[in-house]
Amino acid sequence: MELLAEAVTRTILLTGDSVERKREEVRTYFHRTFSLYESLFDCITDDDAYYPRPEPLRHPLIFYFGHTAVFFINKLVLGKYLDRRLDERLESMFAIGVDEMSWDDLNEANYDWPSVTDTRAYRRRVRERVDAFIGEMPLGLPITPDSPAWIVLMGIEHERIHLETSSVIMRMLPLDWLQPHPFWSSACPESGPAPENGLLPVAGDTLTLGKPATAATYGWDNEYGSKTVTVQPFRVSRYLVSNDEYLRFVQDGGYQSPQYWTEEGRRWLAFSRATMPRFWLERQGEYYQRNLLQEVPLPLNWPVEVNYLEAKAFCNWKAAQDGSHIRLPTEAEWTLLRNRLDADQPGWARAPGNINLEHFASSCPVDRFAVDGIHDVIGNVWQWTETPIDGFPGFEVHPLYDDFSTPTFDNRHNLFKGGSWISTGNEATRYSRYAFRRHFFQHAGFRYIESDYAEVPVEPVNTYETDELVAQYLEFHYGAEYFGVANYPVACVRTLLARLPGLNKGRALDLGCSVGRASFELALHFGAVDGIDFSARFIQHGFQLKESGQTRFAIPTEGELVEFKETSLHVLGYAEVAHKVEFVQGDACNLKARFGGYDLVFCGNLIDRLYDPSLFLGQVHERLNPGGYLVLTSPYTWLEDYTPKAKWLGGIKVNGENFTTLDGLKALLGGRFELVGQEDIPFVIRETRRKFQHSLAEMTLWKLK
Amino acid sequence: MELLAEAVTRTILLTGDSVERKREEVRTYFHRTFSLYESLFDCITDDDAYYPRPEPLRHPLIFYFGHTAVFFINKLVLGKYLDRRLDERLESMFAIGVDEMSWDDLNEANYDWPSVTDTRAYRRRVRERVDAFIGEMPLGLPITPDSPAWIVLMGIEHERIHLETSSVIMRMLPLDWLQPHPFWSSACPESGPAPENGLLPVAGDTLTLGKPATAATYGWDNEYGSKTVTVQPFRVSRYLVSNDEYLRFVQDGGYQSPQYWTEEGRRWLAFSRATMPRFWLERQGEYYQRNLLQEVPLPLNWPVEVNYLEAKAFCNWKAAQDGSHIRLPTEAEWTLLRNRLDADQPGWARAPGNINLEHFASSCPVDRFAVDGIHDVIGNVWQWTETPIDGFPGFEVHPLYDDFSTPTFDNRHNLFKGGSWISTGNEATRYSRYAFRRHFFQHAGFRYIESDYAEVPVEPVNTYETDELVAQYLEFHYGAEYFGVANYPVACVRTLLARLPGLNKGRALDLGCSVGRASFELALHFGAVDGIDFSARFIQHGFQLKESGQTRFAIPTEGELVEFKETSLHVLGYAEVAHKVEFVQGDACNLKARFGGYDLVFCGNLIDRLYDPSLFLGQVHERLNPGGYLVLTSPYTWLEDYTPKAKWLGGIKVNGENFTTLDGLKALLGGRFELVGQEDIPFVIRETRRKFQHSLAEMTLWKLK
Repeated sequence: MELLAEAVTRTILLTGDSVERKREEVRTYFHRTFSLYESLFDCITDDDAYYPRPEPLRHPLIFYFGHTAVFFINKLVLGKYLDRRLDERLESMFAIGVDEMSWDDLNEANYDWPSVTDTRAYRRRVRERVDAFIGEMPLGLPITPDSPAWIVLMGIEHERIHLETSSVIMRMLPLDWLQPHPFWSSACPESGPAPENGLLPVAGDTLTLGKPATAATYGWDNEYGSKTVTVQPFRVSRYLVSNDEYLRFVQDGGYQSPQYWTEEGRRWLAFSRATMPRFWLERQGEYYQRNLLQEVPLPLNWPVEVNYLEAKAFCNWKAAQDGSHIRLPTEAEWTLLRNRLDADQPGWARAPGNINLEHFASSCPVDRFAVDGIHDVIGNVWQWTETPIDGFPGFEVHPLYDDFSTPTFDNRHNLFKGGSWISTGNEATRYSRYAFRRHFFQHAGFRYIESDYAEVPVEPVNTYETDELVAQYLEFHYGAEYFGVANYPVACVRTLLARLPGLNKGRALDLGCSVGRASFELALHFGAVDGIDFSARFIQHGFQLKESGQTRFAIPTEGELVEFKETSLHVLGYAEVAHKVEFVQGDACNLKARFGGYDLVFCGNLIDRLYDPSLFLGQVHERLNPGGYLVLTSPYTWLEDYTPKAKWLGGIKVNGENFTTLDGLKALLGGRFELVGQEDIPFVIRETRRKFQHSLAEMTLWKLK
Repeated sequence: MELLAEAVTRTILLTGDSVERKREEVRTYFHRTFSLYESLFDCITDDDAYYPRPEPLRHPLIFYFGHTAVFFINKLVLGKYLDRRLDERLESMFAIGVDEMSWDDLNEANYDWPSVTDTRAYRRRVRERVDAFIGEMPLGLPITPDSPAWIVLMGIEHERIHLETSSVIMRMLPLDWLQPHPFWSSACPESGPAPENGLLPVAGDTLTLGKPATAATYGWDNEYGSKTVTVQPFRVSRYLVSNDEYLRFVQDGGYQSPQYWTEEGRRWLAFSRATMPRFWLERQGEYYQRNLLQEVPLPLNWPVEVNYLEAKAFCNWKAAQDGSHIRLPTEAEWTLLRNRLDADQPGWARAPGNINLEHFASSCPVDRFAVDGIHDVIGNVWQWTETPIDGFPGFEVHPLYDDFSTPTFDNRHNLFKGGSWISTGNEATRYSRYAFRRHFFQHAGFRYIESDYAEVPVEPVNTYETDELVAQYLEFHYGAEYFGVANYPVACVRTLLARLPGLNKGRALDLGCSVGRASFELALHFGAVDGIDFSARFIQHGFQLKESGQTRFAIPTEGELVEFKETSLHVLGYAEVAHKVEFVQGDACNLKARFGGYDLVFCGNLIDRLYDPSLFLGQVHERLNPGGYLVLTSPYTWLEDYTPKAKWLGGIKVNGENFTTLDGLKALLGGRFELVGQEDIPFVIRETRRKFQHSLAEMTLWKLK
């Protein structure tokens, strides 16, 4: 372990007093990372080993060898810090990789990979170029996400992620393509019988998740923001689940017992035909484990390495023994454990766990490192959690790596925590958050907990709405203002309230509520609000916002490019009133009888989207309380796609004369309503970063006679 | 003639000193018009006569009986001066009529017409309502087109038009449905042999057409504006063509000789199977003429009554006799004759022609009224001209009757001039301009002229572009500014000129010129400009504007409703430079070799509409002079409708990273060009009165290296 001692580095602080010292710190961190990464590939004896795909879900090693170098160049070009590429072809081939493929979505593309020699030469050029860049780049302290040094750190931390993922792939290479290595051969020499696992009580608590924006180390975008969670008391396993403990599940026919597996787990089993963990093998009744550079008899007291689906099946099997609520911890539950440990990288003297390459180049027994009797809170192998990864409230995408996190907020990527023996840099810090598809293998295992409750306290992730029209309306209701035009649903509600001082504020109906903004705005003033829309696609976002407090969407910037946005009740100021809103799917032209007794019926941009607006307007008075108001807004954009021409309220010739929609409204409503106000309200709907619909709605206010 | 002397009224002056006297003048003019119109229908003996359609191209008389009353109500409601209708059903049935039907576009709709008694009762109610309105309406002097009194005058003058058109229909009714009438029986008693026609010389002149805005009588919208025309000397027939003169054409087989007829005339002949004028009939070798209330042996010295197509065929027949250039006069040529006559209604002591019902209730001999030896310059029968009706420069639609004139600016409606014996009110004034489809019959005949030139000096009418997309772009280039955003093509040209002080101003290319505004704007500065567009539909408007000085379009306001707009080189300030522009249809991706030697290539909103933008950008340098500039503007709205995704310049992921169009432009152009400037220019495209596209184009300026 001492031969490559300089490889044992720690992520650097963003803060400091001396810019030039910081520049040298960055330079050193870059070179050591680059060298450490290359040293891993020095374990390979034969260039042929770079090209097969031992893991069909991943690129061959040649990709990963080039990829971490290319990443520096691609991000510096994207950030406009470099204006020339080093090698267009390599920078294209080595660009995309890590999480592209799912086991049910295999990429069979044929690649014409470059030689190892050429790739190594390219890496040298990148090293020189980045070194030169570090020497020239403008630098201020602290380093912030918009500074060029952040991009260098992004490249470094990215390479450290791939140090780990490449080591996983190497565990799948035939051993005769690998050779001993002064550093990487330093596997833990200890193994033996496993300790009996057991449960320790953990008190409940309320804690805040998320890395503070002021934290002094580099973080990925998904680490920031903050979320306060209350955790119920639970009992946690003393140890990570060992090979020995897991072997009982295997020998009990766990892989042949679909009842223990989730639906996704059963599909994975059928695809993979797995019968035991990925790095185990069985020969003549004996089990072995494949490590990075060796195969050893199954070390029973080492942690088992499995994917989430296997871990979950184990828990279900174990829970089935006695009917207890055994499961994986959530992110918050694990964080309660982590909070017992003050030490953090880079500040610790020596790692208080098998992590950061500070102890072994492999796993080690599960009873080696403990905090309050709980072992391996960090290090050894990653620990799967029940929590699908999601941004914390306040999450903001880093513009130069906008697909690092957002594509994983999809309910299919679960977080694992704690790091492994080879987790370095950011990976080994307290706030690190990494997630993989639940069937992926890393140096990852699990610990379990026992809860008093059957229900797992995780919330489904709000995925990004990418339907272009729905996302357009989400931006329209909850997004930015353009051309200085005020938010339209809000402006409508504020205007009608200002114009109708005598309005009773009991119950309001927001008919054609779309994604719901006006309903929430009305709830600031009314006792109860019903939001009704014809389209489930739209109204589900109002519903989601009310229920989960958050909604997300991706809007086009240019061509196929998008930007990711989100909003929350908290940011909007509706957290206290959202409970007053009920969202219901319904048809304005055929509204159920129970929708009545309103003091206000507000129809924002509705009437020119109904299939029979006269039918609706002829009945709407029945929904209102005496003295109630009907408020219509519309740009009167009649289209046959929505309303047959024979049903248009206006915008037609009647008896040869121009007959406007306002004429039509007066004719239809004049008998039962008095027109008490009328004004224009502008609105803007964004289509792309450079293209907008800019309209002028007419608001008419009608008092029931 | 004396019994209904009070029917002989004149249009009233808009000016005056006493509002209340003017109010009474309007009231009197209204009642006399209403009574005069009803007196015509008193000639009908049997209510059954109201329902057949003696002229299949027109409604039956019951429609016209109701229509002129309904018109008052409909226009007052449209103008928001009345808020209640008298009878919705009648006001709908009697609304639309006069010019709806063409002989090749027959309307077979089945109408459930009301009874004559009900219609008469309805007319009484309208008379009372309008009388009351006249008594109450706000009135100032002079009366202007936006005052309520103008609407009353519009109704009156409208009724006077139908007095004449109804009398034409009555000439088609069987005589036994008609009876003598104290006034309407006063046909001219004189007839006899026709005088020999001959030609009198008329000196050429430059004259200005159009009714001054300050004129003191009511006018229809198409009469206003002004147009200066130079007329070459010509020779004019002393007399209107008499029945006798026309009979020679008939007897010479004129109706069986297609060579004398225009293409349209031949189609009409085939449809109508006409063998003689519409109001002639032949019995046992003798010709007769049907007048309003009698049939008489053909009065040889009365003017023949024909449509334009027949008149034109006669001229061609006559011209064929000796190869002379015999034709109908143009509007300007006729106006030269009219200008010899100072008198005008309402100012004359007695009408200097058979007009305004001041002499006869029929035509009279063609040699009765003369000016300088030229007979019937006004009155007797209308005189067809060669001129398709068109608005004069400065034409503005009257908003309360926006389909009075504009639908006739279609190259299918020719003007006739001078009025007939029954032309009263505005019809009998100097500036009156009426036009009908060329196959229509009125109390209309013709005089001919002989010109020195074969070519007829009429300009084709610029019809209104109604294609929604083309009209949208015409408004975008030549229409109003919205949201305070400056005209885009103009802003682009001004911006690029400001940014490129060293630009040579020899030749410019406006590629993707659409309807051409930037080409004209460039011509203010450059020696020569080529405007090229892929679409003939668009570029034809640039061409038309250059050639005719004018272009017209109809843009949607709401639903199917449109507003009519026009622009001219004069108004735009391009009259002096338009000759420097050449518009050519062409494909930017496959441009002919002759387009080269430019100092500037300007591509406004072009690159994201090309099918292969890289192909274009890879060659465009060949078009430029050394030191020349390429200027691109675009909102980068990539759509697969225009550009296959594989050809998008940007707005795509390249190597997993966002690659913008600007990135793509730099990659493609960076080798041969230097990027010397870059800025955003907003633009607004109107879709309806309330809906707009509001975009931000990026302008990039590239200097050829």
